Amino acid sequence: MLDVNQDRADTQEPLAIICGGGSLPLAVADAVARRGRRVVLFPIRGFGDAAAVGRYPHHWVGLGQFGRMCRLAHAEGCRDVVFIGHLIRPSLHEIRFDWQTLRLLPRVARLYRGGDDRLLSGIGRIFEEHGFRLLGAHEVAPEILVPEGLMGRRAPGEPEQADIATGLAVLAAMGPFDVGQAAVVANGHVLAIEAAEGTDAMLLRVADLRKAGRIRYPIGIGVLVKAPKVGQDRRFDLPSIGPQTVTGVIRAGLAGLAVVAGSTIVAQPGIVAAAADRGKIFAIGIPEPQRQ
Amino acid sequence: MLDVNQDRADTQEPLAIICGGGSLPLAVADAVARRGRRVVLFPIRGFGDAAAVGRYPHHWVGLGQFGRMCRLAHAEGCRDVVFIGHLIRPSLHEIRFDWQTLRLLPRVARLYRGGDDRLLSGIGRIFEEHGFRLLGAHEVAPEILVPEGLMGRRAPGEPEQADIATGLAVLAAMGPFDVGQAAVVANGHVLAIEAAEGTDAMLLRVADLRKAGRIRYPIGIGVLVKAPKVGQDRRFDLPSIGPQTVTGVIRAGLAGLAVVAGSTIVAQPGIVAAAADRGKIFAIGIPEPQRQ
Repeated sequence: MLDVNQDRADTQEPLAIICGGGSLPLAVADAVARRGRRVVLFPIRGFGDAAAVGRYPHHWVGLGQFGRMCRLAHAEGCRDVVFIGHLIRPSLHEIRFDWQTLRLLPRVARLYRGGDDRLLSGIGRIFEEHGFRLLGAHEVAPEILVPEGLMGRRAPGEPEQADIATGLAVLAAMGPFDVGQAAVVANGHVLAIEAAEGTDAMLLRVADLRKAGRIRYPIGIGVLVKAPKVGQDRRFDLPSIGPQTVTGVIRAGLAGLAVVAGSTIVAQPGIVAAAADRGKIFAIGIPEPQRQ
Repeated sequence: MLDVNQDRADTQEPLAIICGGGSLPLAVADAVARRGRRVVLFPIRGFGDAAAVGRYPHHWVGLGQFGRMCRLAHAEGCRDVVFIGHLIRPSLHEIRFDWQTLRLLPRVARLYRGGDDRLLSGIGRIFEEHGFRLLGAHEVAPEILVPEGLMGRRAPGEPEQADIATGLAVLAAMGPFDVGQAAVVANGHVLAIEAAEGTDAMLLRVADLRKAGRIRYPIGIGVLVKAPKVGQDRRFDLPSIGPQTVTGVIRAGLAGLAVVAGSTIVAQPGIVAAAADRGKIFAIGIPEPQRQ
């Protein structure tokens, strides 16, 4: 009984959503609001989507304004915080810091020398030391995660399943380097590995290599595979797909896309499934690969 | 005595060089000719450099004309064959085959399903079964290999050495997948991994990401690392650099480039060193990494 009450109290506190770029922050806000929980958005200046955040109570914050964000979130009665959306690494010297942030600066500067994972987990710990509970988007709105199984009508055949396995193995091998959430594999041949460019740019590259005659497989061979990094802190930066991913896969001339079910966020799942069917590609949520 | 005579006889036979695209085939031909050995070029239609091959006796061959190539090379008295230059994977249906090649087709088709290594080693075995000895370019002209040490005047500092070590580790992890001869690492962060696009395109991507503000490190941070693939058949497809690699590294805003000494081909080493100095980057041949 106590636990149940505690849970109700938790979910009646508003949820603070710190919004980076892209459409995911609002997809999460909508999902949480549909569950009846109040949300307060903290779009980050230069990244948050100004046209979209107006639908909810919101406060713009600069990247260096951690103190301001803490004050506002506490004043709104938020204790749970979700941090979602693209956040391209800014130069430290471009950020205008408030005092609270300045005190933390040496620590953040040290975090900057590692990969994304180290930076993001470090920032997560700092939030927690200031009285917030950092949650993953999937914890507050599990319905935004890709479920296991087909999203549209098409299914991968045997060669595609082999390419998916190769793609997962490549991504697992990249794990220790905090890089590579996605790869493109065709006929056992690794055509592209994602690093700083992001999935959309990688798919565009495959399309361009095909146009230039550097990839000569017929249309409909090859797969995009996305998986969370090994050891990734899943409260941040889960892999995500949306309608633009389907468009990219179609332009790249691939047979379909495979993502890890339960740890990939999908924006607009209905549109994703319809676009996959229309483009004659498969889109599938596959089980979490077994790690050694 | 017998061995010495045998060696002399070997080196007095002309060397057949099958020329793919790029400037390396002629760099190898020049180096072999400087050693006093006659060369006969077999530029591949659609890939060989028509302007350059005229400097040596040559016969154009189509990709599917293995029979023709064998006849001509035997008629020229060639037994040793070197195969060098880019060869973008053509579609099987674009190749016009002669009878000799058609007989080998089922085997080549099977090789097509693997990565580059499998394709190239398989083709190598076929040459040997037809009375040729397939050599690596480095065996006939060792001076085209990058030696250990600095190519220009600049040297990598401590952070660059750490980035080089990270780059080598990334490439070693990619080894099993027959992909990834190059990577870009900055401040411990893997910015790009090469797959089908090639090194020049990967460097251009890093330059573009920087222009778009997606990479915000100051100019002069980060390295290009190139290494042969684990288990790569070094008679084909050794990593190579040339003046355009230096230009790419400078445009990408990196501190320099590191390649594995003794197993990287350098076209125009003097120009590479001068361009590195002029662009204020380092260019270094590093020892072969120890493989576990």
